[in-house]
Amino acid sequence: MLVNGKQGNLISIRDRGLLYGDGVFRTLLTLNGRAQHWPLHFQKLHKDCSSLGIVCPDIDLLSAELDRLLMQQPDGVVKLIVTRGQGIRGYAPSAEAIPTHIWDISPLPDYPPDRTTLGIRARMCQLHLSQQPRLAGIKHLNRLENVLAAAELNDADVAEGLLMDADGNVIEGTRSNLFLVVQGKLVTPDLSRCGVAGVQRGRVMVWAAQHGMQLQVRDVRLDEVLHADELFVVNSIIGLWAIRELDQQKWSSFPVSAKISRDLNGQDA
Amino acid sequence: MLVNGKQGNLISIRDRGLLYGDGVFRTLLTLNGRAQHWPLHFQKLHKDCSSLGIVCPDIDLLSAELDRLLMQQPDGVVKLIVTRGQGIRGYAPSAEAIPTHIWDISPLPDYPPDRTTLGIRARMCQLHLSQQPRLAGIKHLNRLENVLAAAELNDADVAEGLLMDADGNVIEGTRSNLFLVVQGKLVTPDLSRCGVAGVQRGRVMVWAAQHGMQLQVRDVRLDEVLHADELFVVNSIIGLWAIRELDQQKWSSFPVSAKISRDLNGQDA
Repeated sequence: MLVNGKQGNLISIRDRGLLYGDGVFRTLLTLNGRAQHWPLHFQKLHKDCSSLGIVCPDIDLLSAELDRLLMQQPDGVVKLIVTRGQGIRGYAPSAEAIPTHIWDISPLPDYPPDRTTLGIRARMCQLHLSQQPRLAGIKHLNRLENVLAAAELNDADVAEGLLMDADGNVIEGTRSNLFLVVQGKLVTPDLSRCGVAGVQRGRVMVWAAQHGMQLQVRDVRLDEVLHADELFVVNSIIGLWAIRELDQQKWSSFPVSAKISRDLNGQDA
Repeated sequence: MLVNGKQGNLISIRDRGLLYGDGVFRTLLTLNGRAQHWPLHFQKLHKDCSSLGIVCPDIDLLSAELDRLLMQQPDGVVKLIVTRGQGIRGYAPSAEAIPTHIWDISPLPDYPPDRTTLGIRARMCQLHLSQQPRLAGIKHLNRLENVLAAAELNDADVAEGLLMDADGNVIEGTRSNLFLVVQGKLVTPDLSRCGVAGVQRGRVMVWAAQHGMQLQVRDVRLDEVLHADELFVVNSIIGLWAIRELDQQKWSSFPVSAKISRDLNGQDA
């Protein structure tokens, strides 16, 4: 674990990351000492920092620290947090604040492999996401809605929960982005009012463009989700999981999801 | 500064307070070694912890730690944070997590005293608060909206910004609660969809009941705010500030605000 480039696992109680959730983060898969799609993650980190007016650490600095981390532990889940740093008391961000950046690494999760081959059970969450266009899409540290939603999933056999916003649009999973296959097209929810636009979502969008598959980013109602030909969720750690069961609805075949999953995994190094 | 009862100013980078803003806090004024209205703050802390399913530390434990803190620094602004503590990776809160509690103390702010006597200049913020009934009223650690709103107030002569929600209801200040005096009645915004219900707001409500002044908690539109007989904002540190200027609108007399301010301050020890 590294805090501002030094070995350590502690930060100041005056860091605005703790006080206000004033920061952003990334979660990366690392295999055989290689962080998967690190340039995409850095790009997104940089964009999210800019959205909040936080100065993102330099890519060369971060890449060098990541290499140090992976020499010690070549496989795992890497978390990178950038906060606005310490400041004087009060919500207003100070222009002089020096951002804090933090690396942590955890063991690879042991998800049942049949989630990738057979799909998962999912559930609609009771919690509805709030709409905040100023924060939408950003992977920031204000994640209490995800905590409340994840707390609803107390059945170990339910691998993910899907979330609607206050207007009844289906937005995402508690820790994943959602795609629908509808009549040979891909559809993924518009994230301009809430939700987190993940790196893996971006990779699916690029895949669609490369394979000439039409993709729509728009509002999606629950009824359309329940009647989609296929459904799948993605994130950088799970890769792609098709959904075989969502509340009372069931699916038994996922040819498009399976092809995208294979292609995306094939690009992992 | 105390972390879990021990002298220190560091917490783990795996604390869910940092990772997700999964915690709550209080800000108290302390004068001559006495924390003002500590029982009310504890009551609110306990309620907020319960709302998130966090086990609140015992009042006797917290009171003893507060006494230790105030022996070292009798005057200042005390901050108390309770987080859900460390957990395994992932949003879902673990039932085994042991909450972290943190005390910090800062010097008293040097607000110009004429803010209390002459009122303040305020401004409507551009940012609109999102609506999340599951988190409304709670003083939790997801405070990016307050950060963005406070960042708008770059004029040192503007002492507070007021916030509307996405539907155009006026909700609160960036760090205070709002009251209107309208035809001899008090009105304060309903906080069931967003906003933080502060201890000082509760004290004004009790004052109204004790003084037979009618008080309404309900939705408030901007037009009503701009045409109120008096406006004031409250929090535990500033006490009560009347508003003498809000964007283009001006007020020059605040008899009700002044009386409430005197009475509330008179109860400070």
